[in-house]
Amino acid sequence: MACSEFSLIDRYFNRIQNTRRDVVAGIGDDCALLSIAEKKWLAVSTDTLVEGTHFLTDISPSNLGYKSLAVNLSDLASMGADPAWMSLALTLPAIDEGWVSAFSESLFQQLDYYNMQLIGGDTTRGPLSLTVTLQGFIPEGRALTRAGACIGDWIYVTGTLGDSAAGLAILQNRLHVKDTQDSQYFLSRHFRPQPRILQGLALRGIASAAIDVSDGMIMDLCHILARSNCGARINLEDIPTSAALRRNTTPDQARDLALHGGEDYELCFTVPNIKCGTLDVALSHINAPFTRIGQICPRSMGVQFIHHQKIIEYNWHGYDHFIQTYHSES
Amino acid sequence: MACSEFSLIDRYFNRIQNTRRDVVAGIGDDCALLSIAEKKWLAVSTDTLVEGTHFLTDISPSNLGYKSLAVNLSDLASMGADPAWMSLALTLPAIDEGWVSAFSESLFQQLDYYNMQLIGGDTTRGPLSLTVTLQGFIPEGRALTRAGACIGDWIYVTGTLGDSAAGLAILQNRLHVKDTQDSQYFLSRHFRPQPRILQGLALRGIASAAIDVSDGMIMDLCHILARSNCGARINLEDIPTSAALRRNTTPDQARDLALHGGEDYELCFTVPNIKCGTLDVALSHINAPFTRIGQICPRSMGVQFIHHQKIIEYNWHGYDHFIQTYHSES
Repeated sequence: MACSEFSLIDRYFNRIQNTRRDVVAGIGDDCALLSIAEKKWLAVSTDTLVEGTHFLTDISPSNLGYKSLAVNLSDLASMGADPAWMSLALTLPAIDEGWVSAFSESLFQQLDYYNMQLIGGDTTRGPLSLTVTLQGFIPEGRALTRAGACIGDWIYVTGTLGDSAAGLAILQNRLHVKDTQDSQYFLSRHFRPQPRILQGLALRGIASAAIDVSDGMIMDLCHILARSNCGARINLEDIPTSAALRRNTTPDQARDLALHGGEDYELCFTVPNIKCGTLDVALSHINAPFTRIGQICPRSMGVQFIHHQKIIEYNWHGYDHFIQTYHSES
Repeated sequence: MACSEFSLIDRYFNRIQNTRRDVVAGIGDDCALLSIAEKKWLAVSTDTLVEGTHFLTDISPSNLGYKSLAVNLSDLASMGADPAWMSLALTLPAIDEGWVSAFSESLFQQLDYYNMQLIGGDTTRGPLSLTVTLQGFIPEGRALTRAGACIGDWIYVTGTLGDSAAGLAILQNRLHVKDTQDSQYFLSRHFRPQPRILQGLALRGIASAAIDVSDGMIMDLCHILARSNCGARINLEDIPTSAALRRNTTPDQARDLALHGGEDYELCFTVPNIKCGTLDVALSHINAPFTRIGQICPRSMGVQFIHHQKIIEYNWHGYDHFIQTYHSES
């Protein structure tokens, strides 16, 4: 590796940025040094994005900079954490200053928006990939986990589902959308997902369990069910989809994209009946749309899909297919 | 990515391990949840290892598991931090259970040794690379940084230098060592560097600046000099080398390997004259060899090399060459 060149690149990540009081020493030594508020838990999340597996090869550096932070923020959101620090490990095949400049610009814009600080990382030469580690805070004992759902709790999701998967389908010529505005909307939902940080904070003390929808709503709900040792009943008519999605797909397509599409980065969460009033107030207060889609039931009942008040057969094991859609061979 | 296969792999990293009291929730949710002792700073370090750039393609999984943790621990050691938690992002080209099993076995052995816990990470498909983020603790205000060296402070290194580079030279047929024991010694120093954690802890309150020797002793000392705004005088006769290195190389080769070889993962540190007695006691107490190699001087004097009490001309800008030795084209 030509270190002099890489030092040049490092400069893009060592620019003047918002500095947080809790960062004693950021980039420039062997470790970052951080001071920690009392009575807080630290929430730590790590995600790797690899070219061809997690993003298409021709993604713009600006979109990649945005997305690499957003998908990790979504993990913090799902635990109800307040984001603070980022470590970035960036592996690049070659030096392209224009690329790094656009990537870092987009990254820092988002860091500033969330009052976060880049505290360190590593820049190396190799096939394009990124590993992001984010850290945030949660008041002791108030984290939203996957393990707290109880029988009778209501199941909710924020926002609408399936739009990001529609965006990916457009990029891969599997879906053709004539209306430019709709097409742009899907692409924006795919490239610029909005992590539901405020929703996560609002759900502290209200939700009994939560997860972010990255792999597909059903798949992610199943993580809650497995950890909480429960089953679920899902009302298919209640799955929230955008008007754009309904306009540009058949009802079956819309349902499949919403249930399995993945990368929505909405929150899926459960709430005990007694707290539903508080939920309405808390999420309305921050103007955050959310929809009740079902109810937690005993584990023995598995996952049931209800359509027009009847249990229907629905084969929902389509997960691997959707993840594979990034691969060039698919 | 075939997630079912990767879930299988994840099991290797989710085994029963030493659990630390400060880990509220480890692997298995969107984030790890950690509780933090009061009056401590958190030290965070991230390093990426890429095949062909940071390790040879035919490295054994066991050596890679060891090294990926050791090189990061060395960063914590250089700040005087007590290691606690690890996040691992592992990108693999294909599923090879034997490989993952040997890798994780070696990793967990070391984690157990240091009473550390793997708190999370990510397993993805792609070209082989690893990103490790380690976190550790330092009592508030007691971190060893690169910025504290003052004129007159003595410069020290732990252990001996150049052995790891000799091991790499053997692997690449640039150095031929007949004696099997010596050869094994060099390879062991290359594949199994011992992070100087105890030395780092012992140097708290004694060293004015410290760094770990990863890029080569002179290069790393220069990082201290740059941050501390100083120069240095180095006594070439005092650079500590092993008897094995001296037996198998010319004096010039030994000196070059010791000064520039890199990956020694010893500590290079500075100590004010008044604390030299305390230093002797502290490092003798843990049976850690160390050697005085020079003295901090004004920045205007740059880096001077002394041989037989005379300043000599010595071209030490050989850095890029040594790092490039991992590349197959070199």
